[in-house]
Formats: sequence, structure tokens, C-alpha cells
Amino acid sequence: MRAALLATGTELTRGELINSNAAWLSERLTELGFEVIEHAVVPDDSEQIASTLARFGREVKLVVCTGGLGPTSDDLTAAVVAQVMGVPVLRHEATLARIQERYRKAGVVMPAINAKQADVPEGARVLDNDVGTAPAFAVRIGQAESYFLPGPPREMQHLFETYLVPDLAHRVQRTTHQIHMRIFGLPESVVAEKLATIDKGGANARPGVTIGYRAHFPEIEVKVHARAADEASATALANEVATEARGLIGHYAYGGRHDSYPFYVAKLLTEKKKKVALAESCTGGLLGRLLTDPPGSSAYFVLSAVVYANSAKRGLLDVPGELIEQHGAVSTEVAAAMAEGALEKAGTDLAVSITGVAGPTGGTPDKPVGTVCFALAQRGQKTVAERRQLQGSRERVRMLSAYVALSLIAGAIEGAP
Amino acid sequence: MRAALLATGTELTRGELINSNAAWLSERLTELGFEVIEHAVVPDDSEQIASTLARFGREVKLVVCTGGLGPTSDDLTAAVVAQVMGVPVLRHEATLARIQERYRKAGVVMPAINAKQADVPEGARVLDNDVGTAPAFAVRIGQAESYFLPGPPREMQHLFETYLVPDLAHRVQRTTHQIHMRIFGLPESVVAEKLATIDKGGANARPGVTIGYRAHFPEIEVKVHARAADEASATALANEVATEARGLIGHYAYGGRHDSYPFYVAKLLTEKKKKVALAESCTGGLLGRLLTDPPGSSAYFVLSAVVYANSAKRGLLDVPGELIEQHGAVSTEVAAAMAEGALEKAGTDLAVSITGVAGPTGGTPDKPVGTVCFALAQRGQKTVAERRQLQGSRERVRMLSAYVALSLIAGAIEGAP
Repeated sequence: MRAALLATGTELTRGELINSNAAWLSERLTELGFEVIEHAVVPDDSEQIASTLARFGREVKLVVCTGGLGPTSDDLTAAVVAQVMGVPVLRHEATLARIQERYRKAGVVMPAINAKQADVPEGARVLDNDVGTAPAFAVRIGQAESYFLPGPPREMQHLFETYLVPDLAHRVQRTTHQIHMRIFGLPESVVAEKLATIDKGGANARPGVTIGYRAHFPEIEVKVHARAADEASATALANEVATEARGLIGHYAYGGRHDSYPFYVAKLLTEKKKKVALAESCTGGLLGRLLTDPPGSSAYFVLSAVVYANSAKRGLLDVPGELIEQHGAVSTEVAAAMAEGALEKAGTDLAVSITGVAGPTGGTPDKPVGTVCFALAQRGQKTVAERRQLQGSRERVRMLSAYVALSLIAGAIEGAP
Repeated sequence: MRAALLATGTELTRGELINSNAAWLSERLTELGFEVIEHAVVPDDSEQIASTLARFGREVKLVVCTGGLGPTSDDLTAAVVAQVMGVPVLRHEATLARIQERYRKAGVVMPAINAKQADVPEGARVLDNDVGTAPAFAVRIGQAESYFLPGPPREMQHLFETYLVPDLAHRVQRTTHQIHMRIFGLPESVVAEKLATIDKGGANARPGVTIGYRAHFPEIEVKVHARAADEASATALANEVATEARGLIGHYAYGGRHDSYPFYVAKLLTEKKKKVALAESCTGGLLGRLLTDPPGSSAYFVLSAVVYANSAKRGLLDVPGELIEQHGAVSTEVAAAMAEGALEKAGTDLAVSITGVAGPTGGTPDKPVGTVCFALAQRGQKTVAERRQLQGSRERVRMLSAYVALSLIAGAIEGAP
């Protein structure tokens, strides 16, 4: 069943506020089985609001509109809805009493201006708002059941759960299911090529299945969306194709919807009861920050020595000064010494290091911007180091460097007995 | 002049991604003098995209469309635009060569699928993208100059500034000017109270001036927006009121539009030729990361000892084990020892430390979640330490902790001779 969203507010069309309500409502409506075919945002302008509502009344079965229910002169929603429906605006006495009571409880007399919030189009169903003054209401416009909710997210979400969910849950039969996975280490186009056989038009494509991609630099999210006769069939279909997709992508695929790569590596470390130490240079602490984002990170994280200056590499991790002089701070030799120094200081199972040229300056013909060296030191094993040439801005080189180091940790653990 | 925005992507209409591009574009177009009368968001669906573009072609003079220019099967924009215009899609050979070159430089052969990104509607003006593979292009649809930009914000913003700003700047007469400043250390309501006299309705309010607020946790952005007969008068008016605003806010105000607090502190350190060392615990490297975001950070940043485990506090910074046993790892005593240890190891002018309970677990009645201790050690001066009770989620406590430490650095430098 098709749904559309309308948000009103000049603060939105001037870019002073981000319309986060749209994403929240879309996610909830999609979960409830609706197909959201449009979000519209218009200024506090009667004509714009009216023409959008009239259009949605022809195009969809459900409209959720947010904003414009406040007490000030730029709050136009009730009046415009009445105009579109060709009915007058009426004062809803029970709502007026509720608003007055709300002010009385706060020890304040209701400002006269707020009486306007009790005005609703004739025939509207009033949805009591027990978390704010603005009432919500529902009317039918064209073929669309149309709900009008206040703009503040907390009030809007509360009213949605209280009134819309019970109203809507029985109106649609869920027939879709979506499975998310994440990928690090392959470009989006390579992932798409690997999945081409099971995507639309491919030799092994299944009817009703679409594959979607989203970049969360430096990760890629792949979504397998299945539509079938009923929800159980859709879930089975999505699972089947997701398993195939994981097979085609190989070990680059991990996790589900909310599992970023750092969280995935944190889970690996926790499960395998491994402790890690870091030695960072060009990332400046970013890798430590990523590995300590998950709650409970003290289970696996001991330290990160952020040794930005050469003196710090010597002073904090005992990297020999001659090694730096001979090979340069950005070298596999220094990376190895940093990782070994961190392993030694921390007494952990493993340590990884990063040293590189993040840019925009500091590059040389031998070691241009984006040159980054990594090492992995493990207790009782030979240290391995590698040099990579990464692309992009300072910010991207730093983020990508942290992710490469994470992949070294993941590789060490997954390869472990 | 009326403008409208279109964003395409099923990930948007399913609520998996917030359309932050709309706010950014609206703000820039408003600054350039346009009136944005609608944002529309539609799924990757040819019919929906086509009907919205056709409608905008009747309603506005400028359309900016984002998304749908990638290489995968759900990227439909070029084909739909061609269909709306009634022209074929043509392969743009120069763009194909540019994309291939981009891959060649990265040491990879271009996947065949990416060739699609060089397809544009016949007659389109191609806008070279030097920060990604997706090209941008411009066409006329109805009465609207229509620009099609990639969805990733970084690419979109770069192309907007490179191509649209020069194209559009002469099309409208600017009569407004906006000045941005940032604030850390005061709640938004206190800032609003301080500025009440110069805001609308205040005793010293100027006609044509509005003051806007936006939270960028933990910073607040204040915008002084002035409208006058012409751009020069608006600029003068905005400058005058902004100076007053800075006076009312005091030393909490700094910088301009793009000066986040870490960049501001980095500039202070660079200008005063001071070098800094850090000792971090609960922030896990976040402070080091923030201070090394600015290019050229090696001028002032030496090291950060991220000593998460107690063993690391001892092993890397020589914090006495008895001190930790006696006062606990989260204490002003241990914070002081951490800062002094970092100063000693790094040989810098100053060092700051952070040790706290970021949560969600680990709190005690004495030291609940959000308890964070800080210290500032300076060569030849007495170390000062303080304990704060911060509010919010793990993520917010960590970010706020890093900002408090930045304010200690700023205070030490600005107080220095």
C-alpha cells in the first residue's frame, strides 16, 4: 500500500533544520508493510501545502504530515486542510480544555495565542496529545487517510506509536523482508559484479528479489530485499539469496544491519578472548577511538600508543632512532618496530601499527601522500609488515588506514586456532 | 527565484538514510538568494522520478537533483532524464576516459559496470567530477535549469561549489548576508538569553536581522542573518550585529562557519608555537584524532598515550600502581599523574589527560557513569586537575570529555604570555 510523507516548515526549506522525521517515519512505515513513494517538504505556505495534499490524495492511500500545528502565525496546517476539504475550521472544546489544563499544571495561564491549537477541520478525528500542546488529527483527503502530527520528533513519534500503529497494522499484509550485510575490502563496483548473477536480470535472479547498495565509507552495505506472497515466504526467499550473496562475496562480508566493521572486530576479539594493543602515527588515535566505541571495550583493548612525532616513537615505544634515520618514519621496518614495541609494553596477544603520509603535504617522490605502512606483531610469531598506497583526502586516508589495521586484527584472529 | 530539490533513492524512502543533502543545498541556495519551495524524495523508480522532474519543470526555475548516478542497476537518473527530455542516452567518451584513468591510477582495471557512469542524456552539459567516478550533468527541463549531482555529500558539495555557484551567482540579486560563529561551553538557552536584546523583539534589535541557532554537539552555531536593500548594506549590518553578539557571548565564541573547536584550538597551538601531549583513557584516542584532523598537525602534536587498561597507565606513563589502588583509575590524582607522565615522555610545553567512566556500565555510587577527571600539566607549573559530572550516552560523554580537554589546552595557551 502506497504512502507519502509531507513535512511543512520554512526552517526546513531554508536548510536550518534537517527533516529527520522523514527517515524515522519511512522506516516505521516500511516495517509496517507500506511502500513510501515520496517525501515532500514545503515552506509554511498555504498554496504549497494545499497542492501537495491534493496531489497525495490522488496518488496514495496514506499520508503522514508533520509540522505546522503550533500556535504562531506561520502554523497553517489546520486551516489549509479545512480549505482542501471544503469545510470550516471548528474549535475543539475538549482539546482547548486539555491545553488549558496542561498550562494550569505547569503553574502558568495559557497564553491566548495557544487557543488556536484547538482548531481542527470540521469532521476531523482528534488524536489527543499527552506529551505536548499541539493536538494531532486525522481526516480523509481524496483516497488518502491523512494524519497530521506535530513536528517535534518526540511528540511525533509518541503519537505515531499511540494512534497510527494500531490504526494501520491490520490494513496491510506484510509481504516483504530485507536482510543487510556489510563489506570491507572490495569496491562497490566489484561487489556489484560478484552479485550480478543473482541481481535483477542475472542468470540466477529470483523474481521478487532486489539487491541494493549503500556506501558507508569505507564500508559498503548490501541489502537483499525480497517480496513474496506472504511474510514467511519473503523471509525464506531473502535468507536464501542472502546466503548465496555471502558465498559470492566471501570473507569480505560480515555482520548485519547495525554491525559496523569496528563493532564486528570488537565482537571477534571479545569472543576469542584476545587482547590488543595499537601503535598509531598518521591516524592520530582514530583506530583506538573506533575500537573503544563499543561498550565493554576494556575486555579486549589495552592501549594505543599514538606516536606522532619521531621523538615519541623512540620515547614511548623504544623504536631505535637509527631505524627511523635509515628507513624513514614511514617504512615497513619502523611499522614493525612500532607493533613490537606496543606488544612489549602492553603484554597483549597481538599488536598492530600504522605509520603513513596522510597528506595533504609531506609526500615525497618515494613516499607520496597516501603511502601507509602497517605491521602485525603476535606473541611467539614473526612480525609481518606491509606497505600500501591509499587514495583520497587526508580524512579518507586516515579512515582507510584504520580499517586496514582492523582487517589485520580480524585476519589474525580468524586465522588463529 | 524559485528552486526545488529532488533526491532519489529507495534507501531514503525506506528511512535507511537521512536526506542531509537537502538541508545543505537549501542553506546554500538561500544564501545565494533563491527561494527553495520544495524538497522531494522519491525511490529509485523511473516513473516517480520522471513525474517529479516534469512537475518541477513547470513550477520552478532551478532544480538540483542528487543521487542515482552510480554504476549499479538501481541508478536510473541519466536514463530517466533522457526519457523526460525525449532524447537518447549517449556515452560521453571523455568521461569514460576520466573514469578509466581514475581506476588506472589506483592500480585497478575499471570494472565493466562503471562504463554506465559515462552515459548522459544527449545535449547535456557534463560537469567533470574530480573527486569521484560519477559525473554530474546539467540540462533544461521545462523552464528549469536542472543539475544532477551524485548523492555522496562530499562529492555533491564539491560539484555544487565548483559548477553551480559560478553559474547561479549572477542570476539572482543578493540582498542578504549571513555570519556564522561557534560556541562551546554554554548551553543553547543561555546563549539565546545573552543574545535576546539583539534578537527580534529585543531592545537593540535591528530591522532585517534574525539570529538563528543550530546545535552541532557539543558546539552551538549562531547565525546572524541580515537582509537590506543590497548585498553591501546587508554585509555591513550583519558584521555590526555579529560584533555585538561576540561581545555579549564573550570568550565562549570563536571562529566562523567551518571552524570547529578542534580546528580553532589547533590554530591557537600553531600560532603560539606550543607543542602538546595527551594521555587518554575513556576517550580511547578520540582527542588525539580530533587534534590531528587539521593538516599540519605535526607542528603542535607530539603524542597521545591511550592508556585504557590500568596496566597501560603504569607501563606507558609510569603512573604508580599504588595511586590507582588508592584513588581508583578515575580520580584527579591519577589524571594528574597521567598528564605529568605524558609531559615527561613527550618533552612538550603542556599535556592534558582524561580518565573517566563513559558507560553504559562501570559506574559506582561514588563515581557514576559520566564521572570524568581531567588534568593539565605545564612545564615549570603546578599541575591542575578537576573532576566533572558529564551527562548523556557513552558517545556523548566521550565527545564532551575530549572537548573539555580541548578547552583546558585553549585556556592554557590564551592565558600564556
